[in-house]
Amino acid sequence: MTEPTRGLPEVSQLVVGVLGGTGDQGRGLAYRLAKAGQQVVIGSRTAERAEAAAAGIGLGVRGAENAAAARESDIVIVAVPWDGHAATLSALRGELAGKLVVDCVNPLGFDKQGAYAIRPEEGSAAQQAAALLPESRVTAAFHHLSAVLLQDPAIERIDTDVMVLGDDRQATDTVQALAERIPGMRGIFAGRLRNAHQVESLVANLISVNRRYKAHAGLRITDV
Amino acid sequence: MTEPTRGLPEVSQLVVGVLGGTGDQGRGLAYRLAKAGQQVVIGSRTAERAEAAAAGIGLGVRGAENAAAARESDIVIVAVPWDGHAATLSALRGELAGKLVVDCVNPLGFDKQGAYAIRPEEGSAAQQAAALLPESRVTAAFHHLSAVLLQDPAIERIDTDVMVLGDDRQATDTVQALAERIPGMRGIFAGRLRNAHQVESLVANLISVNRRYKAHAGLRITDV
Repeated sequence: MTEPTRGLPEVSQLVVGVLGGTGDQGRGLAYRLAKAGQQVVIGSRTAERAEAAAAGIGLGVRGAENAAAARESDIVIVAVPWDGHAATLSALRGELAGKLVVDCVNPLGFDKQGAYAIRPEEGSAAQQAAALLPESRVTAAFHHLSAVLLQDPAIERIDTDVMVLGDDRQATDTVQALAERIPGMRGIFAGRLRNAHQVESLVANLISVNRRYKAHAGLRITDV
Repeated sequence: MTEPTRGLPEVSQLVVGVLGGTGDQGRGLAYRLAKAGQQVVIGSRTAERAEAAAAGIGLGVRGAENAAAARESDIVIVAVPWDGHAATLSALRGELAGKLVVDCVNPLGFDKQGAYAIRPEEGSAAQQAAALLPESRVTAAFHHLSAVLLQDPAIERIDTDVMVLGDDRQATDTVQALAERIPGMRGIFAGRLRNAHQVESLVANLISVNRRYKAHAGLRITDV
C-alpha cells in the first residue's frame, strides 16, 4: 500500500469551469466541487441556461457562456455530449490555450442491447481534445462517476476512485488533487492519453452492471 | 446493494482446463482454482511442459497437450499469449465444441512508454474467440488479476472483482460462480462480448498504475 495522494499540489484556490455543466454529469461535478469549497463556473451554449443551472446548485456557483467560463477558469472540465465534443472544443481553442483541460466525455452509442463503445478517429475523446487544443494541457478523468450519486444531496461521501490520464505529470497531479477534494474519492494516475479509450468506454460496462444489479456502479482500484 | 452471487449455479464438480496454463496468468489461475477444490487440467503445446507445470502446482492438477486438456474439461480458460490466440483456438475448434470457453487474453503491445491496447479485427480477443469457435459458448473474464498475487502461496485471499462478459446468461452465471470459488473474488456480470475490448485493454492502465504506485492493482466495482 502506498499513499497516492502524497505530494499532490494544493488546488483549493483554482477556479474550475465545467463546460456542459447543464447536463447531469457536469451539474453533478459542479455541485460536488462547489460543496468541497472550490470556485466553480458552469459553462453552456447560452449564458441563461448556465446561470439557471448555477442558481439551481447554489454554493456560489456561477454560470456563463462557454467561452467566458473557459476564460475565467484555471481548470476546465469538458462534460459536453460526445456529439458536440469536437465542435465545442474547436470553437474554444483560443480561450482554452494555457488551461488545464479535463476531458470526461464517454463516446458511447446505444441500441436495443444497451450501450457500446464508439472509437473516435483520434483514438479517444481525450486524444481528440488534445489534437484540437494544441496549446492546452489535456488530461482525462471523472469518467466512471454516477451522475445520480453526484447530484444526490443526501449523499455526503462517494467512495470511488477517479482514474486520471495524461502525458504531463504536473497536469495529472493537479487533476488527482482536484478529485480528492470530493469526500470519498481518490485520484489515481492510470496512464497516458493513448490509453484513454478503454477508460472512457468502460462506462458501457458499468451501464450493464447497473442494469443487472440495479446499482450505481463505480470503481475502486485495489492494492493502491 | 444487491447480492450478486445469489442464484449462481453449483460448479464445484466441473473440470476446468487452462490453455496456456504454463504462463504466469494461466498457472496462477490453475493454482487458485485447484486450491479452491476445483479439478484442473493445464494445457500446453506439449504434454511434457503441461505436466511439468502441473507438477509444480500439485493439488491434483494434471497436465496434458492442449487438445486433450480441452476434451477433458467442462470449462476451458484461454490464457495463451495474444500472439498465439487465433492459431491455438482455430486448431481446437473441434475439441472446444460444446464447451464453455472463458477468454482472459489481453491484446496489448509494449514500447518505451509502456503498454498500449491492440484492437483485434473482430473487436476483442473474446470476439475473435467467438468467431473462431461457433460451436462453443464463449465468455470473457479474469483479465484484471495480478499473476504475481495469483501465484503467491502466502496470499490466502485476493480481494478483487472479476468482470464477466458474454451473451449467454447461463454461461456468464457459471463463470461468475467459478470466479467466486476463489476466496475474496466476486464474479460480476459486466456486459456483452461486444463490450469486451475495453475490459481486455484496461490492463494497459493497470500496468501504469502498478508502475506509478508499485502495486499489484486490481478492480472492485462499487455499489454492487
